[in-house]
Amino acid sequence: MTRLVIIGGSDAGISAALRAREVDPSVEPTLVIADRYPNFSICGLPFYLSGEVSDWRSLAHRTKDEIEQAGIRLLMDHHAKAIAAEKKLVQVVDRQGGTREVQYDRLVIGTGAESIKPNIRGIDLPGVFLLRWMDDSFAVYKWLTEHESRSALIVGGGYIGMEMADALSFRGLSVKVVEFAKTVLTTVDGPLGEQVAAELERHGVKVVTGVGIESIDAEGQSLKVQGTKEFNAQVDLVLVAVGCRPSTTLAAGAGIQTGLKGAIKVNRRMETSVPDIYGAGDCVETWHNLLKKYTYLPLGTTAHKQGRVAGENAVGGNREFEGSLGTQAVKIFDLVAGRTGLRDTEAQEAGFDPFTDHLETWDHKVYYPGAEKMIIRITGDRRTQRLLGAQILGHRRSEVSKRIDIFATALFSNMTIEQLSDLDLSYTPPLSSPWDPVQMAAQAWIKRLRGLSVQ
Amino acid sequence: MTRLVIIGGSDAGISAALRAREVDPSVEPTLVIADRYPNFSICGLPFYLSGEVSDWRSLAHRTKDEIEQAGIRLLMDHHAKAIAAEKKLVQVVDRQGGTREVQYDRLVIGTGAESIKPNIRGIDLPGVFLLRWMDDSFAVYKWLTEHESRSALIVGGGYIGMEMADALSFRGLSVKVVEFAKTVLTTVDGPLGEQVAAELERHGVKVVTGVGIESIDAEGQSLKVQGTKEFNAQVDLVLVAVGCRPSTTLAAGAGIQTGLKGAIKVNRRMETSVPDIYGAGDCVETWHNLLKKYTYLPLGTTAHKQGRVAGENAVGGNREFEGSLGTQAVKIFDLVAGRTGLRDTEAQEAGFDPFTDHLETWDHKVYYPGAEKMIIRITGDRRTQRLLGAQILGHRRSEVSKRIDIFATALFSNMTIEQLSDLDLSYTPPLSSPWDPVQMAAQAWIKRLRGLSVQ
Repeated sequence: MTRLVIIGGSDAGISAALRAREVDPSVEPTLVIADRYPNFSICGLPFYLSGEVSDWRSLAHRTKDEIEQAGIRLLMDHHAKAIAAEKKLVQVVDRQGGTREVQYDRLVIGTGAESIKPNIRGIDLPGVFLLRWMDDSFAVYKWLTEHESRSALIVGGGYIGMEMADALSFRGLSVKVVEFAKTVLTTVDGPLGEQVAAELERHGVKVVTGVGIESIDAEGQSLKVQGTKEFNAQVDLVLVAVGCRPSTTLAAGAGIQTGLKGAIKVNRRMETSVPDIYGAGDCVETWHNLLKKYTYLPLGTTAHKQGRVAGENAVGGNREFEGSLGTQAVKIFDLVAGRTGLRDTEAQEAGFDPFTDHLETWDHKVYYPGAEKMIIRITGDRRTQRLLGAQILGHRRSEVSKRIDIFATALFSNMTIEQLSDLDLSYTPPLSSPWDPVQMAAQAWIKRLRGLSVQ
Repeated sequence: MTRLVIIGGSDAGISAALRAREVDPSVEPTLVIADRYPNFSICGLPFYLSGEVSDWRSLAHRTKDEIEQAGIRLLMDHHAKAIAAEKKLVQVVDRQGGTREVQYDRLVIGTGAESIKPNIRGIDLPGVFLLRWMDDSFAVYKWLTEHESRSALIVGGGYIGMEMADALSFRGLSVKVVEFAKTVLTTVDGPLGEQVAAELERHGVKVVTGVGIESIDAEGQSLKVQGTKEFNAQVDLVLVAVGCRPSTTLAAGAGIQTGLKGAIKVNRRMETSVPDIYGAGDCVETWHNLLKKYTYLPLGTTAHKQGRVAGENAVGGNREFEGSLGTQAVKIFDLVAGRTGLRDTEAQEAGFDPFTDHLETWDHKVYYPGAEKMIIRITGDRRTQRLLGAQILGHRRSEVSKRIDIFATALFSNMTIEQLSDLDLSYTPPLSSPWDPVQMAAQAWIKRLRGLSVQ
C-alpha cells in the first residue's frame, strides 16, 4: 500500500487525497494541516465577514467527519517543518512544539500561498489585517464586532479588495478602496474597471486610484492612513489585499526547484524536480493552456484540477494537467466581472497580433422585463482570427460567468471568432437573444476588424 | 447588381437580407411578407399575452423603418403565390387580390412553418386558437380581453404549451394543460418532465397527461372539452399547441424537392434542388451537427444561422451551415429547462452505445444565500466516452441556459466527458463551485458508468 502524505488541507491537498482514494481505494492518505480548518472555502471569507454566511462552519466544503469517513487521515494543527527527501520523511511540529516524523512513499505539497505584506509603515498595528486563511478571518471578525467598526479602508482594488468592499458595505461600514493603478480590478481592461469603480461609488464606496499607501498610525480608537498625492483618511479598520505569493519555504528547503515568484517548478504530471514529490495549487507554477508555458496564476479552480492530477499520479496514474486559461469571475454588488484567456497586452507579449474590441448589448430580449446591458470584450488574433480571450461585465442576473465559460470552452478547442457564430447556443426571450450576446460580440469584432460600423 | 428576392420576413428571411447587405452592400434585397409584421419575435408571443410585454410593437427585433434604412425593400401584405423558376419570377398577390410578378436573380425561401391542426371536433369554434404568427396572437388577445376569460385549457405540453401555461397563469387565468404523452415537455427526459409538471402544479396549473382531446363544444359562453379516459372540462378558451409543420406548398409547387415532413431539401450551402433558389429556417431540413444527417428541427436560433448562410451565398459567398444540436431553453414559472445534443434514445437510434445519468447538485456554494438545486443529465457513449448530449433543469436564476451552452460548445468540439473536467470554468461562491456543476455531473457520469457510487 502506497504511503501517501499530503501537506496542506485546502483545495489542492484535499482534491489530491480524494482522487487518490478514487483511483486506488487501498490508499489511506495522511493530510498534514497547519490549522484546524481542512477543506474550507477561503473564497467564502468575504461572505462570512459580510454577515451573509452566519456560521463560519458552513464554509467547509466537507466537514472533518466527512473527510475522515472518505478514508483520509487528518493531522491538524501540525506544521510541516522540513522534508528529508532522501529518507522520504516529513518532519512535523504540533502547536506545543512537539516534533515527529511522517514516512511517505509519495508526497504531495499543497502549501498554498500567503498574502503579500507591502512595505507600509504601521502595517502591524492592531486593526490592520491581511486576509487569506480562516484565522485571518476570525481576527477581522473579532475586531469588527468588538470595536463596532463603522469605517474601513481597503488597500488594493483586486478581487479580494472588491469582494471585501461589497462585504463590508453590506455589513453597514463606510468603505474606501485605495488602488495604486489607474483603475480598480486590473485583471480586466480599463473600460470595464471604470464601470466597476462606478458600481462601487453607486453603493457608497469611495474609490481612490493612482495612490500608494505609505503609512498607518494609531490615533485614539482609529487609524490614520496616509499615502501619495496627499492622501489622508481616518478609519476604524484597514484591510491590506495586494496579492499573494507562493508559500514554498518548505519545498525550497528540501532542494525542490522553484521558479516564477518562487513557485515550485512542476511538469504537467505535477511532479516536482525531486522524485516522488508532487506539487499542486497556489504554491506551484501553472501551465497555461494558451501560452503553452508556465505562469504563476493562483486560483481555487486550478488548485482543484492540479490536486486531482497530482493525487491520481501519486498512486500510479498517468494524467496531465491540461492547463489554465486564467478564467475568473467576481461579484461586486450587482455586477459580475468575468474573464478568460489573454488580454491584448498579454497576447502581444506572447507573439500574437491581437485586436481587442467590445460590444455593449442587452443580456436578453429587451421586450422581456428586467433586461440589463452587458459589455463583452473580445481579444482575437488579426491574422488567424483565432479567439484569444474574453471579458464580460454585466448584471449579476445576466449569466455573465457562464457566458465567460462559453468563451473558455471555445478557447480550449482553439476556435476562431467566426466559429462562435456557428455554435448552437440556447435561446429563450427571458434569458438571451436568437444570437446570444456572445455571438453578437463575435460578429461585431469581425466587422470592426474590417473597419465596418456596428449597428 | 444581383436582384435578391426573399420570401418570408421572419428570422430566416431577415437574417438572409441583412447578411447579403453586409457581404455585398450594392444588393438591395426585396422581402415579400404575407403580413405587416416583419422581423417580429414570435418567441415573444407568450410574454405579450401574459401582459409582461405591454405593447406588441416592442416584439419587433427591428422596426420597419430600421429594416428599410438597412437597405431592405419590404413588400408587406403580399402573399407569394407561385414561383416560375425557369423565368426566375415570383408571383405575388396583395390583400385585394391584385397580382404582380417580381423578378429575381437569386431567391431565398423562408416561409417558415405552420401550426399543426389536429383532428379534434370543434377545433374551428370561436374561442379555440392556434398560436404561431402575430395575427394568431391578436386573435387570442382580443378574445381574452373582450370575453374576460377566466379559465383556459391548453392542448399540448411542449414548449409553447408550457410557456402559455405560465403566461395565462401570470394573467390570472385558471389553466389546465392536457398532454397525450406520459409527461409534459417530452423534449427532455421523464425525470425532468415530472419536475416541470410539479412546478406547474405548484403554480396552480392542473396537468393531465396520457389523455388525447377528442372534441370541443360550445356551451353557452364557455367551451366543453372532452377527451380519452373520460376527460372533461369546461373552460373559456382553448389553445391548441401540438407542434408545427414546414410551410412548403409554394416551394413544392415550384418543383423544389422536399423531404422529411415535407420540409425543403437543402445542402449545407442552403441551396435547394433548383438553381439559384435557397431555403432557410423552419421550412427546410436541418443538418444535424452530431448525427451528420438531415433532420426536421425548427428553431429560431437555427433559422437565423441558416438565413445568414443563405444570404451570404446568394450574393456570391461560399459558406456552409455548421449544423444544429437542437439546443433549446425554456422558462416555466421559476424553472428553466434546457437541452442540447442527443438523448439516450436518439443516440441509440444513431448507432451510439449511450449511457445516460444525472446528478442533482447545488447551483452555487450552498453557504452563500439563494442556492438552488439543479439536475444535470448527461448522455455519453460508453465505449468512447464522447459527450453526446445534456439536459439541465434548474431555477431561473441558476444560469441553466448558459450552462447548457457550455455543453453545446463542448459538443461542437467533439469533447469526451472526461475533458469537461479539464475545462477552466469560472468560479465565485455566489455563482458556482470550484468544480462547476457541469463538471461535477461529468465526474458523476464517469463514476456511475464504472459502477461506483457518487457522493
